Order: sequence, then C-alpha cells, then structure tokens
Amino acid sequence: MVTSPVVNTYPLSSYTFGTKEPKMEKDTSVADRLARMKVNYMKEGMRTSVEAILLVQEHNHPHILLLQIGNTFCKLPGGRLKPGENEIEGLKRKLSSKLAANSLALQPDWQIGECVAIWWRPNFETIMYPYCPPHITKPKECKKLFIVHLSEREYFAVPKNLKLLAVPLFELYDNVQRYGPVISTIPQQLSRFQFNMMTV
Amino acid sequence: MVTSPVVNTYPLSSYTFGTKEPKMEKDTSVADRLARMKVNYMKEGMRTSVEAILLVQEHNHPHILLLQIGNTFCKLPGGRLKPGENEIEGLKRKLSSKLAANSLALQPDWQIGECVAIWWRPNFETIMYPYCPPHITKPKECKKLFIVHLSEREYFAVPKNLKLLAVPLFELYDNVQRYGPVISTIPQQLSRFQFNMMTV
Repeated sequence: MVTSPVVNTYPLSSYTFGTKEPKMEKDTSVADRLARMKVNYMKEGMRTSVEAILLVQEHNHPHILLLQIGNTFCKLPGGRLKPGENEIEGLKRKLSSKLAANSLALQPDWQIGECVAIWWRPNFETIMYPYCPPHITKPKECKKLFIVHLSEREYFAVPKNLKLLAVPLFELYDNVQRYGPVISTIPQQLSRFQFNMMTV
Repeated sequence: MVTSPVVNTYPLSSYTFGTKEPKMEKDTSVADRLARMKVNYMKEGMRTSVEAILLVQEHNHPHILLLQIGNTFCKLPGGRLKPGENEIEGLKRKLSSKLAANSLALQPDWQIGECVAIWWRPNFETIMYPYCPPHITKPKECKKLFIVHLSEREYFAVPKNLKLLAVPLFELYDNVQRYGPVISTIPQQLSRFQFNMMTV
C-alpha cells in the first residue's frame, strides 16, 4: 500500500497562548490593499506570499489555527516575502512576527513542511485561482501554503487586535461563504495526510 | 526555494484513441448503487476505491481525462479494489479495463504517481468528505485519487458506451454543480505541482 505523509497533531491544550502589541493591517479597505499591491508590483514585480497551516487536535479531529480580524474575517498566519527572500526563512520570519513572543528565547520551533497549495492572482483584483490562468503571462501574486509541523509544546503570543482560533476541518469544508476559496478547500488539500493524534 | 513535484504533460494530439466493447455500469440508479454497496460491505467490509488523474495539455493548460456516461455524468477512470488487493496494482487493473485495448501488447505504461486526495464515505449515502468525520468509527468507503504519469505516446481504447473527454482545469474549478465535490476540487489538489508542458 502507498503510505501517506504523517503530521503529528497535539492537543490544543498542550499549547500556551499570551498576547503582545497589536499588528495593525496595512490597509483599511480592499481598494487600498489592491492599490498598494499595484504600487509594490511596479517597484518589485510579482508579489510572493507564504502562509502557514498550523495543526492541532481536539476530540481526535484536526483543527487549523486561524487569525481572526474584527468579527468575521479570518486569515492564515503568513505574509509577503521580501524581494529575493527564501520561502522557508520568510515564512519563519512572518510566523514569528504574527505569533511569537518578542523574546528570542521564546520563539517556537517553526518546522516548515510540505507545500500543499499554490494560488495565483492574475490581476489587481481579489480573485485568485489554483493555477495560472491561460493567457496570463504576468501574474500579480503567487501565494504558497505550507504545513508547519508544531512541536509538542509551544508558547504563542497573539497580537492584541487579533484572535487566534482553532477551527476544525469539518467547519472549513464546503464553507466558502465564511472562509473564502483558499481556506475552505484546505481540508481537500490535507486529505492525503495521515494525522497522528498525539496525547501529552 | 522549495521545489515543486513535476508532472510532464504531453499534448492531447500525441495520444491515439480507439473504441472497444461497452463496459456497462453495474447499477442503473443511485439507490441500486447504494444497496449494492451495503451488500458488499456486509461481505467484505469497507470498500476501497482508487481513481486516476490522467493529465494532458492543450494550449499550454493542463487537462484531465474524464469518462462521460450518458450526457452529463463524468467520472475519473478507476474503481473498487478486490479485498486485500494492492492499490497500485488494482489501479493499473482498473485503468486497463476502462481505457486499454484488449491486446496485452497495447497496454499503456501506467506509472502510478502521487496520491493527491483521500475521500471518505461515512454512511451508505452519496455524500463523501475529505476527512473521516468525527465519531465515525466504521466508514463505508475510502477513495484515493492518484496522479498517473503518462508517457509521450499511448493508445487508449474507450468502451463504446462512454466518451473520453479532456477537460481543462479552469472548467473544473469552482464547478461543483457539473462535476461534483471530488472532481471540482482537483485543481486545488494539483496546484502544488509544476506542469512541464512538453512538445512532441
């Protein structure tokens, strides 16, 4: 039989959560965000962003850690790479900025694992596709999602303006209205993995 | 940078298509199908099925080969494993039954590649999930989707009651109404791959 790649998944209760200073969004509207994207594209070319899928378990079912902004909008931790920055190093930098305490001694051990999806933004618009659409020779953004393998215990410091949620796969699945096309299809992208439900 | 796994994708025109005797569906209705599933479960336990994602290219965009039954229903080539049968051998057997000429000399070189998704059927119902839902200890079916790497030239023999279609990823994406939840999210599952568009 073909063996599935394994993700060790620890109980949510084995992690500790604190807070830190707010990390404000750079844009206050979608229009601002797309305008800033355009300015950056002119300076630096295609935007490359990296996002993390951090897994925990509750009741023997995998959950994903999402950052909630305001009352409804959820996103994966991650962000834009600097021009020429290595994907793995850039994702670690973004994870530390979004989820780690400021003390270097308290940085989680970010083990960046498998790339599970790549999304493309063909134009300066909100819509993205899981392929570069035909006839698009200059996509405006490429976003990669990686599994991050968490250790048994970690301390996360969450910016005060955000909430960190553990959302079960069954809540994400087929829920594009609430989570959007990228996050709502994570369960399909994770389906080939075997989750080892660890106890601590 | 992290390297993506590669799929060499040849033009549709480099393959040859013929026909062979019809392969009739075993069931004439969904109710019949679920009833037969139940009978088989009592005899053999959980059904394990394997399906193939065969990729070709047209206009530099990846297309997937689907078998169309009647005017609307599409499925991936594949089927149910015999009890204890190896997944890879079983998928090769099913692909030869559905798509190869009867002559042993004309069998395509089925190179079974990466498992890209696993779907679970918790009950004797049509709905499947990309995870085993919580509290389901005895799922009724586990279905695995594999990429099959095609050689540069092959001869396919298609049963006379079926049509073989090459459907572009952009047609499948976000089209659950036409293709169902399993096939319509294949573009997301393939997004992490790099397609080498080959010319012949």
